[in-house]
Order: sequence, then C-alpha cells, then structure tokens
Amino acid sequence: MYSYQRLFDFTQKIFLSIGCPAEDALLATETLLSADLRGIDSHGVARLVGYVRLWEAGRINPTPNVRIVHETPSTATVDGDGGLGLVVAPKAMQIALEKAKNVGSGWVSVKNSNHFGIAGYHAMKALEHDMIGMAMTNASPLVAPTYSLERLLGTNPIAVAVPANEQPPFVADLATTTAANGKLEILQRKNLEAPHGWIQAADGSSSTNPNELKDGGALLPLGGDTGSHKGYALGAVVDIFSAVLSGANYGPWVPPFVSFLAPPANPVGEGIGHFFGAMRVDAFRPADDFKNHMDNWITTFRNSKAKDGHHVLIPGDPERESEVIRLKEGIPLLPPVVKDLEGLGDKFGVTL
Amino acid sequence: MYSYQRLFDFTQKIFLSIGCPAEDALLATETLLSADLRGIDSHGVARLVGYVRLWEAGRINPTPNVRIVHETPSTATVDGDGGLGLVVAPKAMQIALEKAKNVGSGWVSVKNSNHFGIAGYHAMKALEHDMIGMAMTNASPLVAPTYSLERLLGTNPIAVAVPANEQPPFVADLATTTAANGKLEILQRKNLEAPHGWIQAADGSSSTNPNELKDGGALLPLGGDTGSHKGYALGAVVDIFSAVLSGANYGPWVPPFVSFLAPPANPVGEGIGHFFGAMRVDAFRPADDFKNHMDNWITTFRNSKAKDGHHVLIPGDPERESEVIRLKEGIPLLPPVVKDLEGLGDKFGVTL
Repeated sequence: MYSYQRLFDFTQKIFLSIGCPAEDALLATETLLSADLRGIDSHGVARLVGYVRLWEAGRINPTPNVRIVHETPSTATVDGDGGLGLVVAPKAMQIALEKAKNVGSGWVSVKNSNHFGIAGYHAMKALEHDMIGMAMTNASPLVAPTYSLERLLGTNPIAVAVPANEQPPFVADLATTTAANGKLEILQRKNLEAPHGWIQAADGSSSTNPNELKDGGALLPLGGDTGSHKGYALGAVVDIFSAVLSGANYGPWVPPFVSFLAPPANPVGEGIGHFFGAMRVDAFRPADDFKNHMDNWITTFRNSKAKDGHHVLIPGDPERESEVIRLKEGIPLLPPVVKDLEGLGDKFGVTL
Repeated sequence: MYSYQRLFDFTQKIFLSIGCPAEDALLATETLLSADLRGIDSHGVARLVGYVRLWEAGRINPTPNVRIVHETPSTATVDGDGGLGLVVAPKAMQIALEKAKNVGSGWVSVKNSNHFGIAGYHAMKALEHDMIGMAMTNASPLVAPTYSLERLLGTNPIAVAVPANEQPPFVADLATTTAANGKLEILQRKNLEAPHGWIQAADGSSSTNPNELKDGGALLPLGGDTGSHKGYALGAVVDIFSAVLSGANYGPWVPPFVSFLAPPANPVGEGIGHFFGAMRVDAFRPADDFKNHMDNWITTFRNSKAKDGHHVLIPGDPERESEVIRLKEGIPLLPPVVKDLEGLGDKFGVTL
C-alpha cells in the first residue's frame, strides 16, 4: 500500500521535473490521483509513465497557454495548446463554472489537449457550487461502430455529477462501450476470457479473446450483441461535442495515448477534444428544493427492494466508498506499476 | 396504406374535437405524426386513442397556458399546465432555441406535461437554425435499476440532432433501455420470445417472456445482462434533468400514460417532465467549418469497411429513409390501430 500523500509528492515532483509550472504540477497531480482514490486504477498513477513518454516524444507541451479562442455568454471553445489534459481540463471546467455563474449554464468544448484522467473528477467540480457538472472526452480509436470492421471511436466517457442535500452526490461516469479498456487489460494480465458482447474479431465475429485488439479486433459499443447502435450513437455524440465543435481530431484521427504509435497523418484538427458543462440548479428552481428532492430520489432508489444478496447502488457509490478506504488505508499498486514509477524516479532523481 | 395527409386531417380534427385551439391542434398533429413518418409506429397515431382517453379522464388540459416560471439568460423552467406533451414540448423547445440565439445555448426543463411523442422530432427543430438540439423525457416506470426488483424508471429516451452541410443530419434518438417498450408490444402480438437481456422476472432472474411485466417483471436498462449499470445511470440522468430540475414527478411517481391506471398517490411533483437543449454551432466555431467537418465525420463512418452483408449506418439514417418512403407510399396501420381510429371517428363524427 502507498499512502495518497506519498504518491502525491512523488507525482508532483515528476510533473515539476518535466517542466510544468508549480501551479500546473499541483493541478495535474490532483487530477491524476483522483482516479487512484476513486478505484479507477487504470486511469491513475499507473499512467504517469505514459504521460512522461508522450512528453519525451515532444507530444505534450509542459507550459501551455490555455486560452479561449471563441465564446458567447454561455459557451466557449478552448485551445489547450498541446498541454496535459490533466491541466487543460480543470481550466476549461473552471470557465464553464464561471459562465454558469453569470448566465445559468456554461458549455466549453476543448481542442489541442491530451488525456484528462477520469471524467467524473471534472464533472464533480460543479458540486461545491450547487451546479450540475458534465464532462466528456474523445480518445484513441478502439471501438467499431455497429456493423463496422474499423476502429473509429474511443471509449468516449460521459460523466454527470448532481448535488444533493443530506445525501452524497449522484456521480455517473461511464465509458460508452460495454467494457472500458482498463477492464480488458486486467483480463489480459490474468489470462482470462472476456464475456460475450465486449469484443469483436477482425472479421466482425463475436470474440472472448482479450488480446483480440492486437489482431485487428475492436471493442463493442455499449449494448454489445443486442443493442450496440445505442452505444455507438452515444460515443458518436461525445466525439462530435468534444472534437467537431472545438476543432480537435475526431474518429480515426484521434492521436493514440501511447508514444510508440505515431499520430495519424493528415490530422483533421488539433490534439484530442473534451466537452464540459455546468448548470446552476437555481437556474431552474430554488437550490434547496432541488437538493431536497435529490435526497428523496437517492433514498427511494437506494432503498428499493433488491435481488437476494445485492443492494441497489446510486451512481458514484462504489467510487466514493473506495475514496474513504484508500485515503485511510492507502492505494494498492501492482508490481509492474511500481517498477514503472521507480524507473521514473531513477530518471528524474525522485524517491518514490 | 394511409396517406400522411389523410391521417393528418383526421388527427387534427380529433384534437380540435377535444377542445384544442387551432394552433395547438396543428402542433400536436405534426408532432404525433412525425413518429409514423419516421417509422416509430409505437409512438404515432396508434397512441391517439390513448391521448383522448387521458383527456376523457380529465388528465389532459386541452387549453394549457404554457409558461416560463423561472429563468436565467440560458435556462428556463416551463410549466406545461397539464397540456398535451405534443403541444408543450414544441413550445418549450422554441424557448431553448430563442435562448441559444441570444446567449449561445438554451436549456429548458419542463414540468406538468404529458407524453411528447418521439424525442428526435423535438431535437431536430434545432437543425434549421444551425444548432445542435437535444431532447429527453421521463416516462411511466417500467425499468428496474441494476440489482433492483422495483420498476423505478421509464424508458427515458435521449435525442441529439446535429446539422451537417451536404450530408443529411446526424439524429440519435435512443431509449436508455435495451429495448423500447414498443418492441416488446410487437413480440407480444406475434407471440414471440424476447432476447436475453431485455427483461427480468419479478424475482430478478433473466426472462425471455414478453408478458413478464404483467407478472411484476421489468425492462432492463441499456447494457442488459453485462452492463446495465450504465443504462441505469443514463436513464437516471434523464429523470433528474427532466423532473428533479423542473419540479415534475420522478422515479416511481411518474404518472402512467394509460387512463385505466391511476396516477400514484402523494405525487412529488406535477405531471411528467422533459428536458430540452439547443447550442448554436457558431457559438463554438464558424458554422461552415463545423458543418464541413460533420460531412467528413459522416462520410468517414458511413464508408467504413462493414461486415459481410451490412453497411455502416449514421444515427437517423433508417428514420429518414422511412420518411421518404412513407410520404410517397403512405403509412401502414395494423388492424387494431385502424379499429381504434374508426372508433374515435364515430365518437367525434370524423371520417378516417
């Protein structure tokens, strides 16, 4: 187990070492480690080495000038200037919050960014302001649209965070695929088969081989074998809001997160794209009315009669419970992740 | 086959007969019949008798005063005054469009309404203004959240319409369940089994019996047996945006569409709820840039390599093709639907 503070200090020093200004290193560290706290191990400190390799390949600008390039009272397009998504995204979400403060809602599409960690973290920034927050991002193409043999969409997550009063907030954060890529990586490591409906082979047939993507296979949109057209449509909306609105790369042109794969030739935009939204709840009704009804919504669903051996969860429950435990007991890291971090430590003279 | 014009004239006269003002009867007819044109037979003229029965039961106000009860520059809450959703929804969408014209985007939550037809129709109202349109609604509870045995959510659809330039628009319109209730009704009529992942029995076990809902069963959220927590989260977001924001009924309190079932006692709000959004594409980048990139997005996906015997569709393709055919060749109606319409005709002295 590694304490949050220990991983925080280490990660912050690594971001400083690659040239991030102090404020940005702090922001990037908080954003990245929110995944480890919330139990989304695939998106946290395990990816630190990936961000550093992209920086080494000259594909991340450690000192970006994140700026608005187009705006109206309720919308903005932000140029991330090739910065870490971990830095660009919180700054763009802040713009959405400010616009919502002024005119009721704020909507920000971002180009020229990189991976931004977990979507839920950004959406949750709205909660303390009694706002509903939303966050989406496109990502490297791994997903075949319904009937297609080509990988044209990323796992393109959607997050929505809604404040309540006495109850903890509602926080949905979901990839628009049947399974996130992180779950596939776990099956690969454990040498297990994937359930039907997660993956197709290169010829479009159903597959349970978690290594199928290496042979031209693809992840399936949410809905899998029986309704993937819905997941395809949702993933497409994320791609359009994040990248066609902002001027980022979309579809098969989204650059890969890994440094050993080159970005596609003839890009259609700049970097990857995100989309953020914020709505003040008191832009619709008094905030206390809304939050009290959210309490009623949450308790009604949570207390509904469940299948034997189960209880009904509210979106965000497992991640919030993980956060409590991991802040207290520490964060478990797999041996290969520790090895990667120690390698980074050696490179930059930082002790884990 | 019944020509669009013939069904239009008939439906308009029925709405006039129940006391709708001329302008509202026109609006309701256009909205309702858009479902028949687009091939969503379950939501079109087949439901006319249902709307009339609700009016007979005193549960629809034919002369509503649809009005804004709370607003900011980019948001509004609308009271539908118990009117037909077919009338309330277009008026609320119009408010979203006007706000988007003024400040870049407009977001409207609606209470005290009824079923509004197909979500896609409302979202598409944005297209002619070079805006992205969104529409959602909650609905009678038929869906059990993941692990729950209770029906707490409706099929809660989400529609997103995006304009393109040379290409036809992208129009996603999806229930947040594995299968819409209309598809289940078709299986019931044909006495066929449902695929796994659509339905659960009263004890939460998987079922293929399309009549299971009559015995305490429930529809499953999108994702079915392998990922229903995602569909549950999406359906919940629709419920919250449509009803907790506006002050409509949510969760198990949403009143049933059928007149023979009484609305739940102790309502938590007024009527059912909808949510509409509009974003000007030129609030993010020049409209021509956006629409040309949408053309590229659409042709890239449509022309991608497909499985044998298939081609890759863009959301909205099947419905648009249906509209072309049905405007030309007419709309097929099942015998029980014709019988219902003839019964309405007899009642109000209107010839089908």
